[in-house]
Amino acid sequence: MRQRRFGRVDNVLKEITPKSVDYSQWYVDVIKKADMVDYAPIKGFMVIKPYGYRIWEFIQAAMDAKFRATGHENAYFPLLIPENLLLKEAEHVEGFSAEVAWVTQGGSEPLTERLAVRPTSETIIGAMYSKWIQSYRDLPVLMNQWANVVRWEKATRPFLRTTEFLWQEGHTVHRTPEEALAETRQQLEIYRQVIEGELAIPVIAGRKSAGERFAGAVETFTLEALMGDGRALQIATSHFLGQNFAQAFDIQYLDEDGTRKFGWTTSWGSSTRMIGGLIMVHGDDKGLRLPPRVAPVQVVIVPIARGTDEEQQQVLAYARLLKDRLAGAQVRVRLDDRPEFTPGYKYNDWEMRGVPLRIEVGPKDLAKQGMVLCRRDTGEKTAVSEAGFESAVTAMLDAIQQSLLQQALEHQQAHTVAVENYREAEKYGHRGFFEGDWCGSEACADQLKANTGMTIRCLPLDRTPEGTGCVVCGQPSQERMLFARAY
Amino acid sequence: MRQRRFGRVDNVLKEITPKSVDYSQWYVDVIKKADMVDYAPIKGFMVIKPYGYRIWEFIQAAMDAKFRATGHENAYFPLLIPENLLLKEAEHVEGFSAEVAWVTQGGSEPLTERLAVRPTSETIIGAMYSKWIQSYRDLPVLMNQWANVVRWEKATRPFLRTTEFLWQEGHTVHRTPEEALAETRQQLEIYRQVIEGELAIPVIAGRKSAGERFAGAVETFTLEALMGDGRALQIATSHFLGQNFAQAFDIQYLDEDGTRKFGWTTSWGSSTRMIGGLIMVHGDDKGLRLPPRVAPVQVVIVPIARGTDEEQQQVLAYARLLKDRLAGAQVRVRLDDRPEFTPGYKYNDWEMRGVPLRIEVGPKDLAKQGMVLCRRDTGEKTAVSEAGFESAVTAMLDAIQQSLLQQALEHQQAHTVAVENYREAEKYGHRGFFEGDWCGSEACADQLKANTGMTIRCLPLDRTPEGTGCVVCGQPSQERMLFARAY
Ligand SMILES: [Zn+2]
Ligand SMILES: [Zn+2]
Repeated sequence: MRQRRFGRVDNVLKEITPKSVDYSQWYVDVIKKADMVDYAPIKGFMVIKPYGYRIWEFIQAAMDAKFRATGHENAYFPLLIPENLLLKEAEHVEGFSAEVAWVTQGGSEPLTERLAVRPTSETIIGAMYSKWIQSYRDLPVLMNQWANVVRWEKATRPFLRTTEFLWQEGHTVHRTPEEALAETRQQLEIYRQVIEGELAIPVIAGRKSAGERFAGAVETFTLEALMGDGRALQIATSHFLGQNFAQAFDIQYLDEDGTRKFGWTTSWGSSTRMIGGLIMVHGDDKGLRLPPRVAPVQVVIVPIARGTDEEQQQVLAYARLLKDRLAGAQVRVRLDDRPEFTPGYKYNDWEMRGVPLRIEVGPKDLAKQGMVLCRRDTGEKTAVSEAGFESAVTAMLDAIQQSLLQQALEHQQAHTVAVENYREAEKYGHRGFFEGDWCGSEACADQLKANTGMTIRCLPLDRTPEGTGCVVCGQPSQERMLFARAY
Repeated sequence: MRQRRFGRVDNVLKEITPKSVDYSQWYVDVIKKADMVDYAPIKGFMVIKPYGYRIWEFIQAAMDAKFRATGHENAYFPLLIPENLLLKEAEHVEGFSAEVAWVTQGGSEPLTERLAVRPTSETIIGAMYSKWIQSYRDLPVLMNQWANVVRWEKATRPFLRTTEFLWQEGHTVHRTPEEALAETRQQLEIYRQVIEGELAIPVIAGRKSAGERFAGAVETFTLEALMGDGRALQIATSHFLGQNFAQAFDIQYLDEDGTRKFGWTTSWGSSTRMIGGLIMVHGDDKGLRLPPRVAPVQVVIVPIARGTDEEQQQVLAYARLLKDRLAGAQVRVRLDDRPEFTPGYKYNDWEMRGVPLRIEVGPKDLAKQGMVLCRRDTGEKTAVSEAGFESAVTAMLDAIQQSLLQQALEHQQAHTVAVENYREAEKYGHRGFFEGDWCGSEACADQLKANTGMTIRCLPLDRTPEGTGCVVCGQPSQERMLFARAY
């Protein structure tokens, strides 16, 4: 049973535009009011405030542990890349040249060669790998870097597309193409585990079509998620680079058979963009809804102080006790004892910030040695007794984590439509995931985009053509594809 | 009792220049041979390799926990800073303008205003704080950022001085100067705890003289460490900025009394430079010596395989068992079972990498159900039995941690000399810390530097003038100072 109770509707809540009125404005309102981010005084740049940054730290910790468990090590490569290095891989430079920020002056002197602020690091890392790798015994090389990158974007939106963003980029070298491909797939699977397991965002895994591949890749794998407004978000990618970069950067090793061979490389990345997905997948008109595993505050305790001063102090002391006990159970808990705000204001405030669980304690709860747990995801309220309440809380946090994933999965499934002709998507306003056969020609992909604004998001790994013919031209099916309008 | 036993002297060891022959070359040899760092193909930039980066991660974890425990939160501010912001604080821009790298082109278009790659972030953070802070209720603001910064340096040396480096920079705003000063001192104390407690580097805490202060600061506090060659290293600083930046960036708050007031700000930073200090304080002619708390590998197990295949397999199985048991005791352990190298080679290799403790296991050890522990810091060997060896190992790691700090402290004390005239330092080759009285005039500081290359490292917090007159001019003493040649 779902119940909703609103506190006094006040400014906090009024300031969020409803999703149905203007989804873009809703997004911007939420991230600003929830104190996640602010605009910097430089066009296209954002400031990630502590509440947003903490989420990034939880994502980092989860990813990093899995990278390490699979044998990867972190390293750090230079921010600035000489132009000559960037020019070495032809497709790569073509893909990125329009987005590069250039340093042309260092100190008081103009530089003889301009330096790119890294848009991604295949080139500088490739140059180093070329030095480091001599023998087959040096392989595989499995490194990851947590870093900032800059891509000069025309239209930006905090977390989703900003000129500077934070990310991780993995770069590996292998002896065989099979091993490199297995690495590419393994890292995609790690992304899926973290994005579904921590962020509670269901994803579709697939290959990119040639036109959507990373610049310089032989094969790009992607995870695609469906946002609350029915648009797609590419949320992490993993690239099999073949020998393209190995040849461009001369990454060779002496094999056991005494001959020199080029290595097979991969790269894979995920960024602060995931936080944008998190907001859009789970948020509602009251603000954020955060999955407990990445919530900076998992439980907020709001004391409802009524009656005499002494009674109020007793409630507060009780709330403090509960807080200490939850902290002892490793729950990230905050007690909101701000005297200047009403409980109703606080409810709205923490709901906007997406705190998964609220505990209300008033004089009656104190008298009964109990409390009321209120779930952010469903609004459901449950009275529990103080004895052993920690396990009730942690069980409910687990349930919320699962429930958010389930809700998002249901939304995704409800908005995934199989079609035989792409024009069928029109009646859904081009919102949602559309699945259909494709002849494999880029001309059809171009026509799809030109006519509808939709792009091929991926060729899902677990699907095959149904034989109904290309959704654009009707020619024989080569691939099953997922298409949508995308962020 | 100290014992030393060398394995077969081989190439690994030969490649390190002895400290006494050429200290600079020794440093470069060690960081390269120990696989901590490499030179990037851009002048002044370094690549931090996994073995070096892991140390940085341990430092980060220790610092970050203490920052968080004292109420600080992490955030992230833009890499690029518009020139107009950088110009707002006059002393600050003067201090940094010669070191700034400028972005002048974004994508295909030249920028109308050039953007500085942050050399430090007081200016961009000040601009944001000005927006965020309205009321006394918003104070204090306590934020920290882990980031890369760029300063265009002419002479560089990996970790110690590089064009780009990694650091943390804390930035806080307070209601009163007392509170801001207390924050400045508290953060200095946190640095001391981490640098002495984790890195085992003893430091002298002091104020900087006016000529050595951070550009724009009212007071700079510093920690100064003495390196193995008798030169000083400024290893972390904490700045009380007064109202300089608050006025330049209009950081004002409405106080309880209804009037608008400027905030009092601080900033404090520590960087990958600490790793340079770590190497120089503890390293010896065999390579690194790492304190266990920041060692990527705390224990290496080297099996000494002799005899029949079966006997060799038994030793290896025994070594694996020991490894698993240590890993279970949360020890960072590695088993070096590379068949292509001799035990002697491995000893040298891991000694060069500074692994604090080596465990040797051969057929005799297996027969006695024992092993030999060999300390990197002293070379001392101890036979222990397999029963409960985990606690012998962890106790020895603790002892090594303490011993390295103690050795460094003894070195520092043995090379700290009180003088009445700065010329007395000549007989020590200007190597070591020199302590003496100072009249307080910058002219004397300038003369000291011009004549000897020594600078005032700090005015130690726990010392007062002895009344013997300025070591330069003989005029009445105002301050007790510590001076030295510095990195
Ligand atoms: Zn077609
Ligand atoms: Zn003097």
